[in-house]
Amino acid sequence: MPENRPFVSLTTDFGAAYSGICAGVVYSIAPGANVLVLSDEVTPYAINEGALLLRQALPYLPVGVHVGIVDPGVGTPRQPVAVRTGRGDVLIGPDNGLLVPAAEALGGVAAAHRLENPAYRLPGVSTSFHGRDVFAPAAGHLAAGAGLAELGAATDLLPLELPAAVIRNGVLTVTVLYTDQFGSLILSAARPDIEAALGPIAHGMRMEISWTGVSVKVPFEETFGRVATGDPLVWIDSSGQVGLAVNQGSAARRFGLSAGDTLSLTIA
Amino acid sequence: MPENRPFVSLTTDFGAAYSGICAGVVYSIAPGANVLVLSDEVTPYAINEGALLLRQALPYLPVGVHVGIVDPGVGTPRQPVAVRTGRGDVLIGPDNGLLVPAAEALGGVAAAHRLENPAYRLPGVSTSFHGRDVFAPAAGHLAAGAGLAELGAATDLLPLELPAAVIRNGVLTVTVLYTDQFGSLILSAARPDIEAALGPIAHGMRMEISWTGVSVKVPFEETFGRVATGDPLVWIDSSGQVGLAVNQGSAARRFGLSAGDTLSLTIA
Amino acid sequence: MPENRPFVSLTTDFGAAYSGICAGVVYSIAPGANVLVLSDEVTPYAINEGALLLRQALPYLPVGVHVGIVDPGVGTPRQPVAVRTGRGDVLIGPDNGLLVPAAEALGGVAAAHRLENPAYRLPGVSTSFHGRDVFAPAAGHLAAGAGLAELGAATDLLPLELPAAVIRNGVLTVTVLYTDQFGSLILSAARPDIEAALGPIAHGMRMEISWTGVSVKVPFEETFGRVATGDPLVWIDSSGQVGLAVNQGSAARRFGLSAGDTLSLTIA
Repeated sequence: MPENRPFVSLTTDFGAAYSGICAGVVYSIAPGANVLVLSDEVTPYAINEGALLLRQALPYLPVGVHVGIVDPGVGTPRQPVAVRTGRGDVLIGPDNGLLVPAAEALGGVAAAHRLENPAYRLPGVSTSFHGRDVFAPAAGHLAAGAGLAELGAATDLLPLELPAAVIRNGVLTVTVLYTDQFGSLILSAARPDIEAALGPIAHGMRMEISWTGVSVKVPFEETFGRVATGDPLVWIDSSGQVGLAVNQGSAARRFGLSAGDTLSLTIA
Repeated sequence: MPENRPFVSLTTDFGAAYSGICAGVVYSIAPGANVLVLSDEVTPYAINEGALLLRQALPYLPVGVHVGIVDPGVGTPRQPVAVRTGRGDVLIGPDNGLLVPAAEALGGVAAAHRLENPAYRLPGVSTSFHGRDVFAPAAGHLAAGAGLAELGAATDLLPLELPAAVIRNGVLTVTVLYTDQFGSLILSAARPDIEAALGPIAHGMRMEISWTGVSVKVPFEETFGRVATGDPLVWIDSSGQVGLAVNQGSAARRFGLSAGDTLSLTIA
Repeated sequence: MPENRPFVSLTTDFGAAYSGICAGVVYSIAPGANVLVLSDEVTPYAINEGALLLRQALPYLPVGVHVGIVDPGVGTPRQPVAVRTGRGDVLIGPDNGLLVPAAEALGGVAAAHRLENPAYRLPGVSTSFHGRDVFAPAAGHLAAGAGLAELGAATDLLPLELPAAVIRNGVLTVTVLYTDQFGSLILSAARPDIEAALGPIAHGMRMEISWTGVSVKVPFEETFGRVATGDPLVWIDSSGQVGLAVNQGSAARRFGLSAGDTLSLTIA
């Protein structure tokens, strides 16, 4: 098997077509690469969602060049950057915090450089499609053997300010980070946050979740299949985050909640 | 051309991101594989739809390892399995009937084994993402050369109970199996079922279709282009199933029908 | 790196599953190819949208075989064709105008042939899925080395009648060509059309856009980030077309406009 093809992934909020154009640019520069569109379905402009997806996904991908683009600031002075991780990957995208949690999950930031070198951009960079003109060409050239420092000057990365879990008087207040494919609501808390707020928890225990005049009692379970079809549950998702779901249904639709909404959790 | 790369396909109800993670796991284990996401758009939890897609699609794909995941029972005791087909493929997925029609279309079940061997799973299997932790790793190891029997004990597969066509007194009663990309309704009948119920049929003949107080007369045609834009037709789809469509429109939206609904067909 | 794998792209209005089947057919015939699904998300039956996507995207992809399928006439006598471009690509699809703008962008039509040779189709061509039975097999055989003229007789292509920009009395009348992934409305005008109608334009200038009783004043800006979040702008998109957008929002939803609607632009 030809095991040594460089690996490039793309994660965007572009939908299929513009992500496909980016993949085409990578193939044009590095025809021997394996190019995977990890996702073209990030909610448009949702930096937190994209950042958490990259953090969750990239540790399962081969070491390679990983492009992440959720870039509401395209065309403003925000910097395009490439980040070498402790594991040996290079992450490419806008310097708006998107790449930071993934870099931390991949062994931390070993180096970060701006994408400044015109030799590694397409000629005639547009103001609105840096995926095609700046990010994908950089990924292609890195996959084809260019060195990180050739891309531009070393730089520091801007941080990502993710919503946190807040604990006060036995109440855990969390924010909906994003809605997943099944309509489950992924919350700004991991298991230790719940236990710090509410004490030890066990499967089968009931929690009370409240927001803007609404209050529901929901069991904490290990798996969806522990509740009846159509019933809600709190569970720890496969990335380690606390979530609110409905078995074979959509918690987002059921409860009318979405990214940015705030919930309170207590023991029921 | 390097013609001998192992071929792996993925079909899921996960959407792009979680399917992309599964593809990444396969590439991590079998970097020389060709990995195709056949579909990441199966309706969530719709086992019948996924099973019929796999049956329809896999005969057109190269002999290889084909992962199918529509798995409402993830986290319950349902078994993960690998199935060798008469054609030489290996199908991987949950033992909930999803893989059975495809296996039959590929020459039948030659062998089936449970996915038990921890060496062919990721360490620390989650309760909710067996695509990443169990199914994709098994596919990767098979693509990289592992033998089917190394995965676990031989097993029998659970059957799939698909809705059938019912014939009584010259009336054909069918169930909507799923809605395709264009909004066409795919029904639980093939041409022989119609002819067994209604006698010989010919293009241009009109049929009456009834459900819950509604009755419409629709021509049976070979192609969409035989009726005016916006007009309905009954036709035989590319997988051999009877369907109800609207030329350049959505029959699902036009008639308010979806998977599981029951219709009666007679000659108009 | 194995740099010489033939490159095949697929652009369809099929959604994931049927596009995946087409990719599988290509891999079955040309297992050494790189196959990219450029887009499976073209609006169903929207030939103009597909044609403009191909025109915009293909110049950024490697020289190769590019399949485009938006084919409301499948099953009617419309011809399936293969088109060699000046750049050396082969475009494959229905002869309904879909391929014409892309061919022009790739150096023009060097030759066009019908897909007639049964040796380069699947046996038993269906009436409704020529993607699987006619277009993908032709692409696979070309990628595997077949010559264009082996496919069938030389032919002339039908043209594509795209909506034009109309200039009268200092008013520019345009049609919405399609809505992009972000909900931005792409209009039937390029910068020269605006300048021919309204005189020289500069960023920051305000335009008045009117349709069916509605009139809005919108600035012409270089980038989305020049207006506040939620505010509208007119800009030149990355393919050179004039567009109407909302920064981090959807102009289609905001204004209730979609493909085919007609707008008038003047200086505000």
